[in-house]
Amino acid sequence: MTQNPQITPEWIAVDCSATQMRATAMGAAGPLAQATGETSKDLEAALLCLIAPWLSAQTTPVIACGWDAAPFRAVPCMPADAATLVDIPTEDARISLRIAPGLSQTNPADMMCGEETVIAGALALNPDFDGVICLPGLHSRWVHVSAKEVVSFQTFLTGELFSLLSQPDDTLDGFDPTAFEAALSETLSRPEKLGAKLFSLRAEVALMGLSPRAARSGLVGLLIGTELAAAKPYWLGQPIILIGAPGQCDHYAHALRQQGITPATLDAGDCALAGLSKLRGLL
Amino acid sequence: MTQNPQITPEWIAVDCSATQMRATAMGAAGPLAQATGETSKDLEAALLCLIAPWLSAQTTPVIACGWDAAPFRAVPCMPADAATLVDIPTEDARISLRIAPGLSQTNPADMMCGEETVIAGALALNPDFDGVICLPGLHSRWVHVSAKEVVSFQTFLTGELFSLLSQPDDTLDGFDPTAFEAALSETLSRPEKLGAKLFSLRAEVALMGLSPRAARSGLVGLLIGTELAAAKPYWLGQPIILIGAPGQCDHYAHALRQQGITPATLDAGDCALAGLSKLRGLL
Repeated sequence: MTQNPQITPEWIAVDCSATQMRATAMGAAGPLAQATGETSKDLEAALLCLIAPWLSAQTTPVIACGWDAAPFRAVPCMPADAATLVDIPTEDARISLRIAPGLSQTNPADMMCGEETVIAGALALNPDFDGVICLPGLHSRWVHVSAKEVVSFQTFLTGELFSLLSQPDDTLDGFDPTAFEAALSETLSRPEKLGAKLFSLRAEVALMGLSPRAARSGLVGLLIGTELAAAKPYWLGQPIILIGAPGQCDHYAHALRQQGITPATLDAGDCALAGLSKLRGLL
Repeated sequence: MTQNPQITPEWIAVDCSATQMRATAMGAAGPLAQATGETSKDLEAALLCLIAPWLSAQTTPVIACGWDAAPFRAVPCMPADAATLVDIPTEDARISLRIAPGLSQTNPADMMCGEETVIAGALALNPDFDGVICLPGLHSRWVHVSAKEVVSFQTFLTGELFSLLSQPDDTLDGFDPTAFEAALSETLSRPEKLGAKLFSLRAEVALMGLSPRAARSGLVGLLIGTELAAAKPYWLGQPIILIGAPGQCDHYAHALRQQGITPATLDAGDCALAGLSKLRGLL
């Protein structure tokens, strides 16, 4: 990131995930500049690293989501509510930091932090949407939205299992749709078989020369198939919006199309920014 | 291990796993001494480290299982067959090394290496057994045995998933039977929920103060419950022998008793030695 002395944002939008932090300098007419960096344990320091070039003698308001430092709000509730923003004291007086709290659910126990603002953004972009929002990721979430509220949600460990089980030195970027579809339909119809199918995939590589590309596509298929089997009450007969990184959304869209569902797709970064802007507008 | 110049074994039994190697010096009347070490990429070097004190000018026969260096034998077949032992050339002339090949299955693709000899030992100790042998471990296996042959088997990634998902710095050794049983029955009846229940367990820790001991016992229960749901055709109405490390066998025995099944239990090391002795006797 190069310093640009001409940028003096009205406020700064910050979208944190477990690994990344993205800051957007916002002017009256919209985004002026964007900066992305790694999340660190010291969130304020990591944030200042990114936004220091945009700061001036005056205090700049910062609104952040995905920053796990406030009590979660219980669903059902609106995904964005300016009244629930939490002031976070900062050492640096050039910013005033407010964060959007995450959402929690009691039964079954569940939680999200950051996604609530993405959902608020999706609803800002699609004000009349009633249905299900699916957010693929390290932890994928299925969220039932009705009358602008998050009614209930369920989080799955799918992406984390993929990263734990796939070869870390794997630089493959190819995709084998046949292997993906076969694996998907196996666990979608027999989800209890996941643990056995995961081992069987390795045996096919060792004994039958299954290609690494097919094995990796099969692994994605087995994991998403198991998730879709459990999330069926969410996706069956519902309008679906997928929000996430393009690669992951493609796999979920592919899997849903196999079940006769055509989901809409939104970019997670666009939605997060729309959600943070919505919060700013509500202040 | 201290050197004992009085030991001159007739032969040496070696039982390898992914992480450990156990050598037993065998005399005419049975075991004379035992040594255990880590498996290494150079299996011969690791083996010689363990057994050097027992070697003399004469060549000592060594029979090993779990040494993945020979083509696997397709099931159905006898788990131990001396005619299929494979000579492995060694650099050190003081030993003659023969290994028991693993077993493979085509549909569904599956494989085992080492367990076939453990099974042979269990059958040597229980000659009339017909039923199912379950071998918990990093990869747990359910093996259908009939008329002294391995008919079919299925491997599950359960233990590997546990080690990937449990906290690595966790030094807890307590067990919460209530949390275990609740989690077990959840995935045994709804195995497709595994991915969601895994996340929900973390949310219960974060939101409701679930203890680490209960969370860990719940994790074991969720994973074994999913495995039992898929392995039902193996265990339902069958005599069961569990073979493995005591801690893991205890969890599986607990889970099976909840389903009204009382399994027999054998020690994996005893069975491996009985299987290798059976092979030696067949020569």
